Amino acid sequence: MRATVRMAIDRGVAIGAHPGLPDLIGFGRREMKITPQEAHDLVTYQIGALSAFVQSEGGILRHVKPHGALYNMASRDSSLAMAIADAVYRFNPHLILFGQSGSRLIEAGKSKGLRTASEAFADRSYEADGTLTPRTMAGSSIATTEQAIQQVIEMLESGQVKTRHGTVIDIEVDTICIHGDGPSAVDFAQQIRSTLEQTGFLVKAL
Amino acid sequence: MRATVRMAIDRGVAIGAHPGLPDLIGFGRREMKITPQEAHDLVTYQIGALSAFVQSEGGILRHVKPHGALYNMASRDSSLAMAIADAVYRFNPHLILFGQSGSRLIEAGKSKGLRTASEAFADRSYEADGTLTPRTMAGSSIATTEQAIQQVIEMLESGQVKTRHGTVIDIEVDTICIHGDGPSAVDFAQQIRSTLEQTGFLVKAL
Amino acid sequence: MRATVRMAIDRGVAIGAHPGLPDLIGFGRREMKITPQEAHDLVTYQIGALSAFVQSEGGILRHVKPHGALYNMASRDSSLAMAIADAVYRFNPHLILFGQSGSRLIEAGKSKGLRTASEAFADRSYEADGTLTPRTMAGSSIATTEQAIQQVIEMLESGQVKTRHGTVIDIEVDTICIHGDGPSAVDFAQQIRSTLEQTGFLVKAL
Amino acid sequence: MRATVRMAIDRGVAIGAHPGLPDLIGFGRREMKITPQEAHDLVTYQIGALSAFVQSEGGILRHVKPHGALYNMASRDSSLAMAIADAVYRFNPHLILFGQSGSRLIEAGKSKGLRTASEAFADRSYEADGTLTPRTMAGSSIATTEQAIQQVIEMLESGQVKTRHGTVIDIEVDTICIHGDGPSAVDFAQQIRSTLEQTGFLVKAL
Repeated sequence: MRATVRMAIDRGVAIGAHPGLPDLIGFGRREMKITPQEAHDLVTYQIGALSAFVQSEGGILRHVKPHGALYNMASRDSSLAMAIADAVYRFNPHLILFGQSGSRLIEAGKSKGLRTASEAFADRSYEADGTLTPRTMAGSSIATTEQAIQQVIEMLESGQVKTRHGTVIDIEVDTICIHGDGPSAVDFAQQIRSTLEQTGFLVKAL
Repeated sequence: MRATVRMAIDRGVAIGAHPGLPDLIGFGRREMKITPQEAHDLVTYQIGALSAFVQSEGGILRHVKPHGALYNMASRDSSLAMAIADAVYRFNPHLILFGQSGSRLIEAGKSKGLRTASEAFADRSYEADGTLTPRTMAGSSIATTEQAIQQVIEMLESGQVKTRHGTVIDIEVDTICIHGDGPSAVDFAQQIRSTLEQTGFLVKAL
Repeated sequence: MRATVRMAIDRGVAIGAHPGLPDLIGFGRREMKITPQEAHDLVTYQIGALSAFVQSEGGILRHVKPHGALYNMASRDSSLAMAIADAVYRFNPHLILFGQSGSRLIEAGKSKGLRTASEAFADRSYEADGTLTPRTMAGSSIATTEQAIQQVIEMLESGQVKTRHGTVIDIEVDTICIHGDGPSAVDFAQQIRSTLEQTGFLVKAL
Repeated sequence: MRATVRMAIDRGVAIGAHPGLPDLIGFGRREMKITPQEAHDLVTYQIGALSAFVQSEGGILRHVKPHGALYNMASRDSSLAMAIADAVYRFNPHLILFGQSGSRLIEAGKSKGLRTASEAFADRSYEADGTLTPRTMAGSSIATTEQAIQQVIEMLESGQVKTRHGTVIDIEVDTICIHGDGPSAVDFAQQIRSTLEQTGFLVKAL
């Protein structure tokens, strides 16, 4: 763990915590009916644990993004969102809170006085209400790397995204979410970055 | 969790972390062959997690005492002791490290430049080498509250303790360990405190 | 573990498995969005583990009752209920499946060909649809032991129970659920048993 | 889980349980000071859980081999070995117990009346006392596939193995251990098998 944190600091990577549900077997991807107080505890605990490694290596924790099902739950449930924002704020009011563009979590962060970063998804399709098309539905993922990059460019240039139904909705994009666990993840990240830079965008840490 | 931490802060209790082995079923009381690097990670993780709750409630973490089998392992193994002391120091060099009087852990803390607190045990019998009589042996526990209090008074007044074999050894006593999980724990603590105060000692947070 | 199982066998207690969600911290009482296949695996795993202890001591596993949130989820969700019933049946078709009276779980067990036992609750209030009054509502628990025993006698004699709203609904009662983790649990169980026997009922293992 | 067990049964693979220490983070590879009674419980629990999946799919559990650090501990500690053998025997006396050739575990299995299978290691070097050269020492692993296959052939033909120090010791070989988690594991297994068959040996399930 120390070596990983050390490497991130040495390379100037902005380090964030990614706190999730206590569901090791399901990798935090199954929703659990937790109370706002339980969410508060989970987030405090996990931010604190990661922060200790960063602090011990002389680095600084920059942001917090809830993981998996907790992220989705906090997107639509105001009381969970407020609990998470409060936990982040109490631990360190200078942390940036990541959440889905237009979500309850972004609202909660702003109402707490935290800096927030609205996330857009490169390779996921959007519904008319701004949520992601559920993975269980056909067309939930953007099929090709080219289309995903195209969606990112359009979101950044227009502040809008075309939904699965063809309508167009507003979207704020401070940061782009790319999954790191697929075999082509590094390739994909490099392609997005170089296309963005060729188009005239500057990619940098928050 | 927040409520417990809140209450401790409100009552002026000095809060410390009690990091242990990742053995939930065995309550951290079974020795595990972990590497110094694993001990470093465990301690960093657990101090960080608790510290986050304390910090979020506006309190300050004061000390660290390894738990259960990790405490015993760090008493006699220099490399584990050094890893633990280093983890504590890197996280916060103002923390006080607790360890058994005369142990490798106290040595390691001192060599790192940490303040240390040497622990004596009220209700446990000592061997000739300064270790505690193993719980599996007859006579490992002091039988009565009166005898335990007597042992504490003697250790404080003389800086020595009589071992199970009748010999006398030196002992440093900055703090006294009392188990909190027995039915008569509160009673026992109150009796020790009042006897100490009647004898002229002042009991206070480090 | 062996000693507990041994004691149960020696006293002629009918032993059943109580499989629940993989949520140690929440004691399986928080609902989790698991798939029917995950429920099937959970139930198979946990029945198998307990059954091994019973079999090793020369006993026989008699019944299965899902625990906590899994019990409630299986009461109203047919696909989870079918997955659980299938897991029980495949492991051993002679096991008795416990579920709430009138629940999807009892239906699923019957459709699989399992023997089922419909549970009634001594100390909980019922809603008009046969579900229990949620614990978060006032009046969810029957206030006194006398009233709880009265409710049990009425259910057994009439096959009906009076709901929180004053209406009367049908209820099947093969077994009565009493929680074992309160301080007066043993007392309560003895009182119910003796009152039932005085009223002319015979209490026996299924 | 069901699908994996199903596939093994369909392909005629002999299924065995591989029970280990409750150390998820360390993958059961760190020794823990557990009591024989704890070992008994662990083995019963884990055999039972796996057996349930096999039984539910209409298969039969054939053998048991302790995993990781538990295997090593049971190789040299008679009381742990007896506890494990007893747990296996009580669950099902027809199971075959795997252990290192010449180990306490094989002795314990035989004294219980279990069938045993003595394991030899294809790609590990042996010490003069028949234990494996610890992984922390140079030369603990056989360098090339060819040398590993050569070691296997020699052990089978002569009933002996050359130790790291050049001496020769007796070894019983009922089964050969090959690790399944390296990238070339499948290749290695196929090469050993085909070489053995060309040399005139028949490879089959116990």
